[in-house]
Amino acid sequence: MIYLDNAATTYPKPEEVYRALDKANREFAFNAGRGSYLAAKNTFNMIQQTRQSLADLIHVSPDTVSFESSATEALNVIIHGLDFKDGDTVYISPFEHNAVVRPLYYVKEERKINIEILPFNKVTWDIDTEKMCDMFAIHKPAAVFVSHISNVTGYILPYQEIFGISSMYSAVNVLDCSQSLGVLNPNPENVDFIIFAGHKSLYSSFGAAGFYNLKNRILKVIKSGGTGSDSLNHSMPEKGSQRYEAGSINSVAIAGIKSALEWLYNKDIKQHEAALTAYVITELRKHDKVHLYLPEDTSRVIGIVSMNVEGYSPADVGTILAEDYDICVRTGYHCSPFVHKFIGSLDSMGTVRISMGAFNTKEDIDKLVAALSTL
Amino acid sequence: MIYLDNAATTYPKPEEVYRALDKANREFAFNAGRGSYLAAKNTFNMIQQTRQSLADLIHVSPDTVSFESSATEALNVIIHGLDFKDGDTVYISPFEHNAVVRPLYYVKEERKINIEILPFNKVTWDIDTEKMCDMFAIHKPAAVFVSHISNVTGYILPYQEIFGISSMYSAVNVLDCSQSLGVLNPNPENVDFIIFAGHKSLYSSFGAAGFYNLKNRILKVIKSGGTGSDSLNHSMPEKGSQRYEAGSINSVAIAGIKSALEWLYNKDIKQHEAALTAYVITELRKHDKVHLYLPEDTSRVIGIVSMNVEGYSPADVGTILAEDYDICVRTGYHCSPFVHKFIGSLDSMGTVRISMGAFNTKEDIDKLVAALSTL
Repeated sequence: MIYLDNAATTYPKPEEVYRALDKANREFAFNAGRGSYLAAKNTFNMIQQTRQSLADLIHVSPDTVSFESSATEALNVIIHGLDFKDGDTVYISPFEHNAVVRPLYYVKEERKINIEILPFNKVTWDIDTEKMCDMFAIHKPAAVFVSHISNVTGYILPYQEIFGISSMYSAVNVLDCSQSLGVLNPNPENVDFIIFAGHKSLYSSFGAAGFYNLKNRILKVIKSGGTGSDSLNHSMPEKGSQRYEAGSINSVAIAGIKSALEWLYNKDIKQHEAALTAYVITELRKHDKVHLYLPEDTSRVIGIVSMNVEGYSPADVGTILAEDYDICVRTGYHCSPFVHKFIGSLDSMGTVRISMGAFNTKEDIDKLVAALSTL
Repeated sequence: MIYLDNAATTYPKPEEVYRALDKANREFAFNAGRGSYLAAKNTFNMIQQTRQSLADLIHVSPDTVSFESSATEALNVIIHGLDFKDGDTVYISPFEHNAVVRPLYYVKEERKINIEILPFNKVTWDIDTEKMCDMFAIHKPAAVFVSHISNVTGYILPYQEIFGISSMYSAVNVLDCSQSLGVLNPNPENVDFIIFAGHKSLYSSFGAAGFYNLKNRILKVIKSGGTGSDSLNHSMPEKGSQRYEAGSINSVAIAGIKSALEWLYNKDIKQHEAALTAYVITELRKHDKVHLYLPEDTSRVIGIVSMNVEGYSPADVGTILAEDYDICVRTGYHCSPFVHKFIGSLDSMGTVRISMGAFNTKEDIDKLVAALSTL
C-alpha cells in the first residue's frame, strides 16, 4: 500500500508511538487526578509533562494547553464558547475546514453574526491586505479564523500578516494548526487560540487533540461534567485548562502525543515534506492531462497537493489508484466548502488530494506518477 | 497493586483488548468513510460491525448507535441537543453524576427550566411512586435522567418503574449506563436514550463511548464539523448517527470495544461482581468502625460499595490504603453532588468507594478488610 492520505490522518505512526500507546493502555489508563493512589498520580504527572512539551514547541506556558478529544471538538469548544453577539462579524479564510465553518454557521442560526471570507489574490494566493483593511474598517472583526496549512492545497497561509492587522481591532485570532503542529510550528504572536490534532502532523493516535488558550480568555462552557474536583459545585472551574476538560481525560492518547513529540524532536519532517512536495509538483507538471492547484510561489505549499486529471472525475482517479495500484489518496471536497470556488474546482466535484508524511519516499511519488501516466 | 477503583475506569483490561487496540492502531487507524481505498473501507466496516454488536446487546437496530469520545460528551450532546423550553421541568434521580447535573445547570442558566430530584425512600431506596406521580401531575416531566447503576453506591436503580410512568407524559427518558453496559444490560423499553462508556463496564479503552437514540429523536446539533460527506453543506446531516459524529471518528477505541464485546460474550461478570459485592458487604459489616451506605435489600447493589470509617476522613482512608497497603480506592464526592445528602455523607466529606471489576478476587477483598481492620 502506498499511503498518500496523510492529511486525513498520518500513517504509519512511528514504531515508538505504537509501543508507547500499548504501554500507556497497560500502565497509564487511570483516571488522572481522581485518585490518591500512585497509578493515578503517575498518570496525572505524565499528562502534565505532555502539556509542558506541547507548550515548549511554541515557547508558551503549559497552563495554556487544554486537551480535547479531537481538533473538531476543540474548535466547537472555542467557537461556541466565544459567545458572539448579534451584529458581530467573523472573518474566515477561504481555506477553512468544516470544523470551523459548520460551527460558525450553527452560531449564525442563533445569533445574527456575519461570516465574511477574507480576500485572497487568486493568482498569488496572497492576502489582499488593502481589501482586508477596507473590510475590517466597515465591519470590525470580532474573530478571525485562519488555517496554518490548508488541508486541500497544502498552502501555508500568511496568518501573521492577517492577525497583525486584525489584532489592532482586538479580534480573537484563531489559528487552526491541525495540519501543521509538530511539523511546522507557528509563531504565537498575535494569536489567541491555536488548535492541534494529535493524529495528524503530531504523528500520534486518534483521541487526543486540543487548543492553546494563549491569552487566557475565559470561554463560555460548552461541555461540562465531572472534573474530579469540587463535585458539589454545579459549574465547571472558573478558569484554567480544567474548565474545558470535562470527563475522563484520554491519558493513553496523551501518552501517544508525548512519545510522538520525543520522536519528532530534532527530526526535520518539514524539510522532508518540502522536498517531496517540490518533487511531486515537478513530476506532475510534466503530465499534460494533470492540472495542479497551486499558488504562484510553490515553495509556499507543503505536504499536500491537489490536482485533477482531464477526462476523469476525482472519484474515478481515486478508485483507479486504489484498485489498480494500491495507492491511497482522497478525492472530493475534503470537508472544505469555500476553497473550491477559490481554486476553481467546484465544477469538477473537488480534487484529487495527494498528502505526504514522514514515511513517504520519492519512490512512492514515482509510483503515483507512473500510475497517473496511464490515464 | 490491588485495584478497587473500577468505577473510575476498569483495570486491567482483558489481554485480548490490549492486543486489539495495538493491532487497531496499526491496521484500523484510518479515516473511515473518507477514502475510497481498502484500508479506509475496512475501518468503516469494522466500525459498523461494532455498532451492530452494541445494538445486539440490547436487541435494537444498529442505526440507533452514535459514537462519541466519552459518556460525558454523549450526555452533553443529548442534554444541550434536547433544546428545552422555558418552563420545562427535568427530573433527575439523586444518584446522578455531574456529567448529567452540570450540563443541566448550564441549560438552566440560559432557559428557565426547573430541575427536580426524584423522590426515593431513604431506607429502602425505592422510588416513592406516589410522590413522584404527584410531582409529575404538578410539573409534567419534559425529560427524566436516571443512572442504571449509581457510581457512588452501586445501587441498581428502578428505572423501568420510573420510565413506565414518565413515558405516560411523553417525557424523554435518558438512562445513563456508564457503569453497567456490557456487565448488566438494560431493557430499552420506554427508554429514549441510553449512554455507554467504553472504558468502564465495557472493558475497553478511553476514547470511545456514545449513545443509543432508541426513538430516533432529532437532536439540535451541538458539535459540528467534517463528516466526510456533503462537504459543501454548512449543516450536519439531518438525521442518522452521522449527525452526531463530527470529526475523525476514533476507530481504534471502537475496535477496542469490538474486541471487549467478544471477550464479554458468554462471560458472567455480573455474577462475579454480585458475589464479590455480597462478600465485601458481609466482611465489612463485621467491622465496628465501618459504616456502609446501603439500601435495605443489599442484593440491589452491584460492583460498588461506599463506606466511611469512624474517626477518619475519606481522604485519610484513601491515603492510608494507597501508601501502606497499595490498595487503590477513590474517596470524596465522586462527581455526584446530590447522592451525599440522600445517603448522609455530606458532612463526612463524601465516602470511600470500593469498586470491583472482572479481575478482582476474594483475596483482594480480604486484603482490603485486613487493612481496614488496622484502623
